[in-house]
Amino acid sequence: MYENEMMEIKNKQVMKSNGFGLIQKHEKEIFRSFITDEDGLYKVWHLGIPDTSTEGWQVAIEGGVDGTLTLTLKDLQELEQTTVMSFQECAGSPVFPDIPQRRVGNIVWEGVRLRDVLLQVGVGNNIKFIHSSGVDHGDFNGQHYESYDKDLPLEMALNDNVLLALKINGEPLSNSRGGPVRLIVPGYYGTNSTKWLNRLALAETRHNGDFTTRYYNDREVIDGAEVLTPVWEIKPNSLLVFPENGMHLPKEKQTLWGWAWGFHPISKVEVSLNAGLTWQDAEIESRDENSWQRFSFEWEPHVIGEFHIVIRASDREGNVQPLLGKRNQVYRSIIFVS
Amino acid sequence: MYENEMMEIKNKQVMKSNGFGLIQKHEKEIFRSFITDEDGLYKVWHLGIPDTSTEGWQVAIEGGVDGTLTLTLKDLQELEQTTVMSFQECAGSPVFPDIPQRRVGNIVWEGVRLRDVLLQVGVGNNIKFIHSSGVDHGDFNGQHYESYDKDLPLEMALNDNVLLALKINGEPLSNSRGGPVRLIVPGYYGTNSTKWLNRLALAETRHNGDFTTRYYNDREVIDGAEVLTPVWEIKPNSLLVFPENGMHLPKEKQTLWGWAWGFHPISKVEVSLNAGLTWQDAEIESRDENSWQRFSFEWEPHVIGEFHIVIRASDREGNVQPLLGKRNQVYRSIIFVS
Repeated sequence: MYENEMMEIKNKQVMKSNGFGLIQKHEKEIFRSFITDEDGLYKVWHLGIPDTSTEGWQVAIEGGVDGTLTLTLKDLQELEQTTVMSFQECAGSPVFPDIPQRRVGNIVWEGVRLRDVLLQVGVGNNIKFIHSSGVDHGDFNGQHYESYDKDLPLEMALNDNVLLALKINGEPLSNSRGGPVRLIVPGYYGTNSTKWLNRLALAETRHNGDFTTRYYNDREVIDGAEVLTPVWEIKPNSLLVFPENGMHLPKEKQTLWGWAWGFHPISKVEVSLNAGLTWQDAEIESRDENSWQRFSFEWEPHVIGEFHIVIRASDREGNVQPLLGKRNQVYRSIIFVS
Repeated sequence: MYENEMMEIKNKQVMKSNGFGLIQKHEKEIFRSFITDEDGLYKVWHLGIPDTSTEGWQVAIEGGVDGTLTLTLKDLQELEQTTVMSFQECAGSPVFPDIPQRRVGNIVWEGVRLRDVLLQVGVGNNIKFIHSSGVDHGDFNGQHYESYDKDLPLEMALNDNVLLALKINGEPLSNSRGGPVRLIVPGYYGTNSTKWLNRLALAETRHNGDFTTRYYNDREVIDGAEVLTPVWEIKPNSLLVFPENGMHLPKEKQTLWGWAWGFHPISKVEVSLNAGLTWQDAEIESRDENSWQRFSFEWEPHVIGEFHIVIRASDREGNVQPLLGKRNQVYRSIIFVS
């Protein structure tokens, strides 16, 4: 199981499709359950879906104090298994990062803690990042990539929720879900949860590939200088499950409800019934592991007509959902009371 | 036909229903036609629907230089008939006037010009308002009313588009539509188009009833004093017909379109695809009589995801639709490009 040399990973990798792809179902009932059905959870990929086989699958952990550790699927299955419930959210298009995509779910992941693997391989004092690579390869936005490469700060990699996941909601990860092994980084945008994981590398610096430097960096101009922020921690976000946008409701008591989530626990959800003119606090449930949090708000419409409901979540660090122009901009639902 | 004395009008008036009522269909196809089907046009009433009969119907015009003029339905049918195309919009609840109701249509009305009748009866130099009354009576918001009473400034009453209407889209006005005779005031909110019209009165002052003083006045505080503005002239408004709120669209060229209208002709319609962050001008057609005006905007979505479309009309006097908290606040449609 352990070899003190660089290994060539020979996972099977016939591409089933090439380039960026997406499966996103829009039936609203997907969001009614606290745990999202695997079937309802969005799927997104950058470089096609490789035709992975569980047979012979290996993950190499390179750059450890003791060299490279190579783990087969069987090795991983024999290590201690941890279950983590977490929301999973896609950061959206890396080319147009400010358009909300509403790709989110709440999932029970199971697998081996990344921390356990890192401790086995030995983390040197100078290590600051963990690079992760998937076997998917192909063209994206006019460029060819031999693998999909991401990075994490070491501190996050040591978080006891970060997994080399083998299961989703109790079932083995399917090929199109990133199986047999994928990284899961609860609280980080999905782009960091490298699918078809076959390589981890301990590093002193960030990965220098396009998926870490060119894409998935938020650009802000502060004091005239462009500041890049890696798309890691999920910003506070929320989703109204009821009423759905476009609904007609009778003029009776209604329970508005939905989900709120973010890297930091959500401490406040506000509801506006007039497009943001005035706000009221909703009730929110506390966070269970890394789950999304249910909010609800009792409302008795006092008049028939059009209402523009807006939902705004804040985390306990004081970060608030922006009204406009960001991937996590407030959720809105326009309904008619008749 | 003409009598130089006050007459008691003996129209049949059995109430079919009492109090405020509304029929509003929400099928979006209602708005696809330039001329709205009578069947699709909203109906709203304050004091129930009287069971009017065309037999024996009379309209008295009181306070003329030559006394009172009483016109039977037959008299009205024998006067010159005028056809006017006009949008018709309900001002919404007089108790909660700031909630958009989206009750609107574009109609061809036919009947006798109010001006012709006023000229016959003789308008004295001191006359500044025309009062109008319907035979509907009953309770509204906890008060009893013997009739529904409104008023118009004389200048508007002399406008050649204001009709004692007998027909809608070429057909006689039905009982529930306000027939056999109703006032039609193109460009003014529907509350001024008195249904079941049986009395007009020339006056020096506004009518002192609740429907002119208590209800249907917009209240603004200007320099610390409350200023009342009668709900007469329709403020610039607009409606997006395509895409409908809640729609999913493919990522291809789309023609956004809808209607804009107001007392003054609409000179600009702006479209925002990002909830009001940035705006672009739509194309608009010119006004035909008092019709609503079609606007359209060619759009090719550049990315999948959620788009919040906002439509904002301005009239040639420079009045712009407000974003929030007014009956004519901007129309919004939240769609998903997938």
